[in-house]
Amino acid sequence: MERLYGGIEAGGTKFNCMVGAGPDTILAEKHIPTLTPQETIRQVLAFFEPFVRRKQLVAVGIGSFGPLDLHPESPAFGSITNTPKAGWQYVNLRTQVLDALELPVSFDTDVNTAAFGEQYWNPENHGLESFIYVTVGTGIGVGTLVNGRPFHGLVHSEAGHLPLPHDWERDPFPGICPYHGDCLEGLASGPALAKRWGRPAENLPAGHPAWRLEAEYLAFGLASLIYTCSPERIVLGGGVSQHPGLHALVRRKVQALLNGYIHSPLLLEQIDRYITAPALGNRSAMLGAVAMAMEAAGQGDVLKP
Amino acid sequence: MERLYGGIEAGGTKFNCMVGAGPDTILAEKHIPTLTPQETIRQVLAFFEPFVRRKQLVAVGIGSFGPLDLHPESPAFGSITNTPKAGWQYVNLRTQVLDALELPVSFDTDVNTAAFGEQYWNPENHGLESFIYVTVGTGIGVGTLVNGRPFHGLVHSEAGHLPLPHDWERDPFPGICPYHGDCLEGLASGPALAKRWGRPAENLPAGHPAWRLEAEYLAFGLASLIYTCSPERIVLGGGVSQHPGLHALVRRKVQALLNGYIHSPLLLEQIDRYITAPALGNRSAMLGAVAMAMEAAGQGDVLKP
Repeated sequence: MERLYGGIEAGGTKFNCMVGAGPDTILAEKHIPTLTPQETIRQVLAFFEPFVRRKQLVAVGIGSFGPLDLHPESPAFGSITNTPKAGWQYVNLRTQVLDALELPVSFDTDVNTAAFGEQYWNPENHGLESFIYVTVGTGIGVGTLVNGRPFHGLVHSEAGHLPLPHDWERDPFPGICPYHGDCLEGLASGPALAKRWGRPAENLPAGHPAWRLEAEYLAFGLASLIYTCSPERIVLGGGVSQHPGLHALVRRKVQALLNGYIHSPLLLEQIDRYITAPALGNRSAMLGAVAMAMEAAGQGDVLKP
Repeated sequence: MERLYGGIEAGGTKFNCMVGAGPDTILAEKHIPTLTPQETIRQVLAFFEPFVRRKQLVAVGIGSFGPLDLHPESPAFGSITNTPKAGWQYVNLRTQVLDALELPVSFDTDVNTAAFGEQYWNPENHGLESFIYVTVGTGIGVGTLVNGRPFHGLVHSEAGHLPLPHDWERDPFPGICPYHGDCLEGLASGPALAKRWGRPAENLPAGHPAWRLEAEYLAFGLASLIYTCSPERIVLGGGVSQHPGLHALVRRKVQALLNGYIHSPLLLEQIDRYITAPALGNRSAMLGAVAMAMEAAGQGDVLKP
């Protein structure tokens, strides 16, 4: 009997669901719009139901938008906490899936899960002590793995909200973060670009001054991550970062900001290998959730130190 | 026969050496000026010699100024690398102590070692997943422990060099970091304060505008650490941070910057317990080095997860 795993990327716009056993063994995939928690979770469970009925599904992984309660000893463990997303405050995603499917369920942030997917399924990334996934899209999120495990600490990375040098004279845009105004996300997320330049990021052509400024803000964010988390690789994903040429601009600007201070060949000579695009395209989180499900079922713990 | 441990805090100005077995069992302590590597190391070894001769010394821990090569598989493992400190480039401290004393030697950054001391010897700090020590003095250094272990990644934390929002109109001081100008260390280290205000930090009285600005820059640094490393506690040490009232200013400014975004009682209500002074005063690194020596000898690994 085939052993299959469920992966859920729970997002504010859609829930991306997958059944499979790895990037080359994807049996089903579905994108469910994020409506009320009740309706959305009903559709998610319906997607998995046939595989559960045939006893093929072994475990499920969830990578969710946050902020999340990730403390196993907390009463709200497995919940989305104070999200601005109406109706979703303190919804316990983990428990609802666990109770309905009666299978092992792993639960983490969408970005930690995407980081896990990128490290787990790419042998080049095995054995790294510090590994970071950054997504630049509707928001800016950062997933952090230490020794191959999702890292939480007090809560989990919120590096999208890093304070940045902001030259108000050159860029008087005040930023759109409701908490911090001109933090990284406030200045460089997709909606920030749209508001700053009066059109969606995908309609800003190559060579538009938007991209040089965007690369600069992202580079400040990545430099801050390099100084604080000392990652051995950074995967830069998300819709906005797919703009052609943006990775190259960011890499050059990161080098300019570090200014040779950190003597690592990865930063000085091989930055193309250091800041990379996601190997799994837009499936990093779904396939990360599948990998976390495999671990929850006691399978395939290739990253355990 | 008594089992004693050596601790070395190797600094750019002095080498602080200790023989003991914990904060309540300090047998000897010596502060040796940092001269040439040869002369300095000779004096350090002479300090330990009587304890070695009596076969009391079991192991030695070294916490050193950096940057350091901390990769055990690297040929330069145990070296200070590209320091601006004349004569000290690529000095292999670890090997020299190891070869002379023929005892187990642990080796890490001065700040990771100080963090280790503060977590190891203070039971309140046991069991934390993420723990940070920040020193504000001649430079600004950050030590990071994950699950009670010194964290390295690509190199080790260099969070003293975080880029910060810098309001040039309010503070036209360009900063003193030779690599980055107005990074955290460039704006807020002791020498930066001295240059900015024309007198040493210790001569700036309470109520001087220097301290409000200093608190602001430090708060930007701590907020960046909170977003990226999600520590469960931050110890704020070093000479400059001992200015009366500075901790309180920094705490309030950190709360203002986070603006309630991270829903943790530690940040919202108990920030006095979250950002604290070192429990070991100015012996954090020496006693951390002693604790690391105990671990190197296979003793007292109370922090192992």
